[in-house]
Amino acid sequence: MHIEVVANIGEARSDEFLHKTVIVVDVLRATSTIITALINGCKAIVPVETVLKAKELFREGDLLGGERFCKKIPGFDFGNSPLEYTKAAVQGKRIILTTTNGTRGIQKAMKADHVLAGALLNSRACARTAVDFKRDTVILCAGTQDVFSLEDGLCAGLILEELSILLGDKNMAVNDFGMAMRGCYLQSKDTLFETILASSNGKKMNKSGFQADLVLCAKANTTDQVPILERDQMVLMQH
Amino acid sequence: MHIEVVANIGEARSDEFLHKTVIVVDVLRATSTIITALINGCKAIVPVETVLKAKELFREGDLLGGERFCKKIPGFDFGNSPLEYTKAAVQGKRIILTTTNGTRGIQKAMKADHVLAGALLNSRACARTAVDFKRDTVILCAGTQDVFSLEDGLCAGLILEELSILLGDKNMAVNDFGMAMRGCYLQSKDTLFETILASSNGKKMNKSGFQADLVLCAKANTTDQVPILERDQMVLMQH
Repeated sequence: MHIEVVANIGEARSDEFLHKTVIVVDVLRATSTIITALINGCKAIVPVETVLKAKELFREGDLLGGERFCKKIPGFDFGNSPLEYTKAAVQGKRIILTTTNGTRGIQKAMKADHVLAGALLNSRACARTAVDFKRDTVILCAGTQDVFSLEDGLCAGLILEELSILLGDKNMAVNDFGMAMRGCYLQSKDTLFETILASSNGKKMNKSGFQADLVLCAKANTTDQVPILERDQMVLMQH
Repeated sequence: MHIEVVANIGEARSDEFLHKTVIVVDVLRATSTIITALINGCKAIVPVETVLKAKELFREGDLLGGERFCKKIPGFDFGNSPLEYTKAAVQGKRIILTTTNGTRGIQKAMKADHVLAGALLNSRACARTAVDFKRDTVILCAGTQDVFSLEDGLCAGLILEELSILLGDKNMAVNDFGMAMRGCYLQSKDTLFETILASSNGKKMNKSGFQADLVLCAKANTTDQVPILERDQMVLMQH
């Protein structure tokens, strides 16, 4: 299996996703939030690029979620903190979600055969799903405003580790950036929280009072659930 | 000190180098070659972007060096293997050098206050020089055709390690990409050769018969010499 890790959305070229599985990773926080909301019983999440599009797609009974520059969008039900998307709030609902980087990443990946939402929370499950799909795989780190974000790289490294357990290194061809991310993950695997806290987004979120989000999002392999894109919405994969 | 590691030349924006020290890193092989040639007594190296420009600047007594796609340019005295640049061949000479990535990186860095040529061979010396210059520092990984190359990232990680020994982590602000490269270097520091051999360029060069170059270029901190740009040519820094 060929596996390519892409450093940020700006570097992603949609045409290179054809016939592949793409795992979109935005650890802080879009994909962590999508995973959490779906686990908590939300019916589906529709990722869109703009606030306008979110309002256009909104139907009665839906919820609106999203952020711009880490802040909730005025008039929306939720921001981008996974902790807001509780069972009580989301069960049975469809959520229209727009975030600065993560939902853009999903949009960009739409030409792929399969699009998964990956985070540290479900890295092992994403690796297993990618192996099942038997396609070359791209791990698309969302980054922040087209700049690489460390927490996404760590997650890419963890997914590569999990893939290597399933496939064996001999059966994987990984690009140089992926090899670097795997090394970086291995170096930090026992200090994931501290490493993420020292990153650019980690520092920003800690300063903004989102410590609990950091604790949640820095945990590895807490769920075997994988959000997958079906037509234009993310739903949980059926096992 | 702010330290930014840039993943490849395509991501470098010249204007961001103003008032800074830039360490250009092209481990395989331009900067390893520049270091080796200058240590072996070559008077100066003029890095240029094109073959045409190299021929234009050529004066009697000069030597021409360079490659396109790892191959020596027809009519040139040397390719891009540091092993060609022996004492006997280069002593007292000026060399006009054009390579696919490394010399482009130096050209791109010209707006900086100081431009150094860094490789694994002289990472500690580059760190020391950057500290002496008391400027914010950019480590510009040349990469390959605007794609990240693992060996350059490892070198950036080593330079960061050396900077942290000199400055202390508290006195360094490093971008996320740099933090990842440092982690990756630490994970691979005892297996630098093997890690580079497994990289994209490492495999390519091994296949093309350049094993000896890989052995030479994968050695860390073998010299305290630092090439620095003076006007349009690289010379050894005077201690």
